Amino acid sequence: MKIAVLGTGMVGSTIGTKLIELGHEVKMGSRTAGNEKAKTWVSKHSSKASQGTFEEAARFGEMVFNCTHGMASIEALRSAGSANLKGKILIDIANALDFSKGMPPALAVSNTTSLGEEIQKTFPDVKVVKTLNTMNCTLMVNPGSIAGGDHNVFVCGNDEGAKNQVKEMLKQFGWKTASIMDIGDITGSRGAEMILPIWVRLMGTLGSPAFNFKIVKN
Amino acid sequence: MKIAVLGTGMVGSTIGTKLIELGHEVKMGSRTAGNEKAKTWVSKHSSKASQGTFEEAARFGEMVFNCTHGMASIEALRSAGSANLKGKILIDIANALDFSKGMPPALAVSNTTSLGEEIQKTFPDVKVVKTLNTMNCTLMVNPGSIAGGDHNVFVCGNDEGAKNQVKEMLKQFGWKTASIMDIGDITGSRGAEMILPIWVRLMGTLGSPAFNFKIVKN
Repeated sequence: MKIAVLGTGMVGSTIGTKLIELGHEVKMGSRTAGNEKAKTWVSKHSSKASQGTFEEAARFGEMVFNCTHGMASIEALRSAGSANLKGKILIDIANALDFSKGMPPALAVSNTTSLGEEIQKTFPDVKVVKTLNTMNCTLMVNPGSIAGGDHNVFVCGNDEGAKNQVKEMLKQFGWKTASIMDIGDITGSRGAEMILPIWVRLMGTLGSPAFNFKIVKN
Repeated sequence: MKIAVLGTGMVGSTIGTKLIELGHEVKMGSRTAGNEKAKTWVSKHSSKASQGTFEEAARFGEMVFNCTHGMASIEALRSAGSANLKGKILIDIANALDFSKGMPPALAVSNTTSLGEEIQKTFPDVKVVKTLNTMNCTLMVNPGSIAGGDHNVFVCGNDEGAKNQVKEMLKQFGWKTASIMDIGDITGSRGAEMILPIWVRLMGTLGSPAFNFKIVKN
């Protein structure tokens, strides 16, 4: 599949690399074409990897990953262009962590709304699916790297078909069916994003980002 | 030990009953003396159980559990009286869930502060320890009821000695040492309280409050 990965940071390059490994064609999008990090990433991969502006990437992708920083996501998606995103699945894995006042970061949107919901409201013709934002990016594409993959990833969004396609993609990433928790419509991203404050705290306590949440029940 | 349990709801009566079973003396506090739910609770137990106003309970307890509704906790603690709370450990297990606009509830305080922090700021002479707020009350006092108790309870607060005493109390409640996660000072309650939105969502998804979070790592 042709996939756009918006964002050139560690999350974008980790997701992009995994998608290439899975045989997909990936265009990494950034604010300006010829972004150095995007070019470096492309140079490490086959001809299936390319780069361009947010707009070029969004036009290219049949599916779009939002790996931009959550504070800049809406602006990045605006420059990608709603016409280029229309009808497509947008996998939103961003968190609007505001570090402007130092540690711990605040959430720029939270409680009665969330980044996932704001993106859905801003781009009503896009099928937004929130997932993977509750963990370190290494774990996103290699859940088996801790505890045999026996922990959870949350998925929410308004379009059932889109969620099913995203769940299939998560399985390609290595997630077991039983580990994928569907938490309903896009308002579920409120809870998923509000996990971040304890995630950040636990990273400090444990001294490592290599951990995840598991929902335990009988 | 003489313990005050502030609050007559399901959380207060569950905690109070467990404390009685453990051999402690418990005074359940409510806004007015002779509260019907408090009287009913007392009638089910030995002479070790008693009830009174918030003020009477706080004066009685060497340790105080805040089991009031989080939206009313500061007011309840004010009527308990700072002189009666001074120097004591206050175990805050409340959540400031605001249901005034329906479901899902919002958090009345969140993100850059939390109920635990606000209580600590309002009562600087009290040793506030936030814990147990991330799960259903049945589980608080009977962690072994799911998955052999193999899941986590978070503890935070500014006073190390107080936290250690609370951890001992958690062990009396049935928590394994390895399940008790110390997440630092009282600002950790921010993350612990912001778990509630996904907790509420998961309760709906799973159709039961009998679940908990486990932090999984290698």
